[in-house]
Amino acid sequence: MNPPLDMNKEDFRRFGHELIDWIADYFDRIDDLPVLAAIEPGDLKAQLPNAPPEQGEPMERIMADVDRLIVPALTHWSHPSFFAYFATSTSAPGIFGELLTAAFDNKAMLWRTSPASTELEEVTLDWLRQMMGLDKGLIGIIYDTASVSSMHAIAAAREGVEKRIREDGMSGRTDLPLLRVYVSEQAHSSIEKAVITLGLGQRGLRKIPVDSEFRMDARALATAIEEDIRDGYLPFCIVATVGTTSTSSIDPIREIIPIGEEHAMWLHVDAAYAGSAAIVPELRAILEGCERADSIVVNPHKWLFTPFDLSVLYCRHMDLLKRAFSLVPEYLRTPEQEKVRSGSDYGIQLGRRFRALKLWMVIRYFGHEGLAARIREHVRLADLFGSWVEASPDWELLAPHPLALVCFRACPAGVKDLDALNEAIMHGVNASGRALLSHTRLNDNLTLRLSIGNIRTTEKHVRQVWELLNHELRKNNEY
Amino acid sequence: MNPPLDMNKEDFRRFGHELIDWIADYFDRIDDLPVLAAIEPGDLKAQLPNAPPEQGEPMERIMADVDRLIVPALTHWSHPSFFAYFATSTSAPGIFGELLTAAFDNKAMLWRTSPASTELEEVTLDWLRQMMGLDKGLIGIIYDTASVSSMHAIAAAREGVEKRIREDGMSGRTDLPLLRVYVSEQAHSSIEKAVITLGLGQRGLRKIPVDSEFRMDARALATAIEEDIRDGYLPFCIVATVGTTSTSSIDPIREIIPIGEEHAMWLHVDAAYAGSAAIVPELRAILEGCERADSIVVNPHKWLFTPFDLSVLYCRHMDLLKRAFSLVPEYLRTPEQEKVRSGSDYGIQLGRRFRALKLWMVIRYFGHEGLAARIREHVRLADLFGSWVEASPDWELLAPHPLALVCFRACPAGVKDLDALNEAIMHGVNASGRALLSHTRLNDNLTLRLSIGNIRTTEKHVRQVWELLNHELRKNNEY
Repeated sequence: MNPPLDMNKEDFRRFGHELIDWIADYFDRIDDLPVLAAIEPGDLKAQLPNAPPEQGEPMERIMADVDRLIVPALTHWSHPSFFAYFATSTSAPGIFGELLTAAFDNKAMLWRTSPASTELEEVTLDWLRQMMGLDKGLIGIIYDTASVSSMHAIAAAREGVEKRIREDGMSGRTDLPLLRVYVSEQAHSSIEKAVITLGLGQRGLRKIPVDSEFRMDARALATAIEEDIRDGYLPFCIVATVGTTSTSSIDPIREIIPIGEEHAMWLHVDAAYAGSAAIVPELRAILEGCERADSIVVNPHKWLFTPFDLSVLYCRHMDLLKRAFSLVPEYLRTPEQEKVRSGSDYGIQLGRRFRALKLWMVIRYFGHEGLAARIREHVRLADLFGSWVEASPDWELLAPHPLALVCFRACPAGVKDLDALNEAIMHGVNASGRALLSHTRLNDNLTLRLSIGNIRTTEKHVRQVWELLNHELRKNNEY
Repeated sequence: MNPPLDMNKEDFRRFGHELIDWIADYFDRIDDLPVLAAIEPGDLKAQLPNAPPEQGEPMERIMADVDRLIVPALTHWSHPSFFAYFATSTSAPGIFGELLTAAFDNKAMLWRTSPASTELEEVTLDWLRQMMGLDKGLIGIIYDTASVSSMHAIAAAREGVEKRIREDGMSGRTDLPLLRVYVSEQAHSSIEKAVITLGLGQRGLRKIPVDSEFRMDARALATAIEEDIRDGYLPFCIVATVGTTSTSSIDPIREIIPIGEEHAMWLHVDAAYAGSAAIVPELRAILEGCERADSIVVNPHKWLFTPFDLSVLYCRHMDLLKRAFSLVPEYLRTPEQEKVRSGSDYGIQLGRRFRALKLWMVIRYFGHEGLAARIREHVRLADLFGSWVEASPDWELLAPHPLALVCFRACPAGVKDLDALNEAIMHGVNASGRALLSHTRLNDNLTLRLSIGNIRTTEKHVRQVWELLNHELRKNNEY
């Protein structure tokens, strides 16, 4: 008997070509697919066998099931009318990068186990740093998600308090004050999750009020920190947000900087969404002040046309990050380890995908100008949509839109329950399958969010969702 | 001006086909590539531009650089003579799965944002559970790496101690005893990293001695726990390993179970490497006792031909995992949330890749029997290699080889410094580019490790590395 190996070369080529064509057709027909999966919970599960196949099945049958079962159960993030959450998108060079990564299947834990990945990561992240106008003191490292990037930043900050937390931990100690992290009320939930994970607890996070434009109130931050110091706590980290999830508001980094510096606190900037926009010269100001931040996270998988996942942490204190996470057992020692950078020294994950490849291919294929042009166009489309909202007596903006996210609602005269009306409008639009919106609450008002970030989104799609919204408003005017 | 969009359809098809052919050729010629990248630190960086391109570049030029710069800087994990660390491999259906995932680019944070991903994950992990012979009480969830899976298991265990650690954290408290986790001295470094990250500190981890076959000494474990309780500590979690990294030794789960149960401790089983082998009926016994474990991690990206990354945590207490990690801000609320499972409720990461797709495609394409046949063949090859070592007076085994990892060294008569000899042999083999081995230390002896796990590895490759080893032994006999 021949040893059982992988698919043979001819089949790999044939099915591979078919799959490439399938994907080309998918992008071609995606406008006609419902953005939101039109299925009920359990529908897909009910159609799948309860037990795994004993024998292998032909590729044709698997792909037929992708068509018949998987595609209808997808919410299409690649759809140009996906305007929910933060709209994101993959792109052709990014897809090709992922395809190569899956074939190489290398694990970039040590320099030696993947020199290409280690060195390409350093170079590509330095390119991105330059494109964003960040200073040379910031060194980049790739993680999977912003949640994980921010957790690592806060862990490095925790290591920096010099309380032997790596060695002695925090339980069973009487010598440790309450450690506290500060964020605005509008900060992303991932920061709270990171604080919980790190064992600091929800009590270790203090949420600072925001101003009328949803930006952290720097004076309230200063007062909170002083109060906490008086109470014997140890404030050690501020997380400011550039581009909050609800409204894309931008915390006043310049005002926050001196407060953090006065108390020797770590300033981490969560620019997971908005950071990419800084590659557009006229938008670069959103990162003002970051030349004095200790770390900053930006997600190319959000607004830089790079397939999910790829989050970048830029950090000014790689030594602390390494001190917090490096552990090299005998089986990972290599002769060159003192001379090189090994990714696993800087994080909880030992194995690391070759994520830099797709980002490198995206930057090279589109170029800095091409990427900036796409982001600039998204901002233009959001401004256009915002201008329609402003011009209409039936609609209103509920927050400024500095980037490509618009927060708004219907507010026709005489309607009492605006929340119910707007909820009905959103569900109507989403149920149509022709566009997908999401929501938030601002000043206790249900707020619709339109986020533009897909590489295939054009003015036509934005006009269409505006028509859909107005259609739903007319349909629901009984409220 | 037309809006700047993605690559056009014709180019996508053309370059996509070319890339598929490139990968088919890569697998075809991989035997002739050096396994270990033959470059010095900094070689690749020196060949890359310091600044990003302003204008986009043609795909042809990017692919030419992949050939010219990236491939020579890769350590080829897809090479059939990669025997280092844990040899792993991608496979054609897994690559196709990744390709689709990169095109869909969906984020499976909520059921609604990707019903296909959520439901396919549940079904596929239940298939894998059945294949491994695990009981129905274990529910699976996908993370990126075993490091992250184990961190989540220990976090759930920490939540289970009912000390309000999620709410109050561990700093600034006088009511909290020292929390402790127990592992064997042979456990993977990721457990120590997880314990550090979670704020338990290295002091929060106690390492238990192993027996002569590198398995946790259950009696020493019981004694350690009793000692710690007398000292006022709170033992709350045991991490046993099925398939340690150094030797693939298997901790005596059946003996450990009652010790953990006596003290109401969480038993987490790290079967990241070896768990996949349980799909082979005659190897199923390696998971004996897991019917009473609280959680178990297995990595299909290690030994189930699934491209990196995909780690599965099976857990018996999903409620605790959810209690430790769930946080649902307004912008993530959905109408169906009470009726469905949302992946982000169970972990630190909010966004989650559609990883289940590639595993589903791998299981369907090869079938349970096909996968088992490949693992069985790897075990046969390791046994064969082990028999050569045993039969030769110049070589010796340094540990049992229950699976597909062999620990051995050269031990020719009359040589004083066996470590130096074996180090020279390993470097000779690795520098040849024709195979890659790694090492560990066992009883303070430098130990060579041969790990078989690549889908393209055949008996020819194993014979070849044996010849290479003997060649290097003869070359280095001056020691």
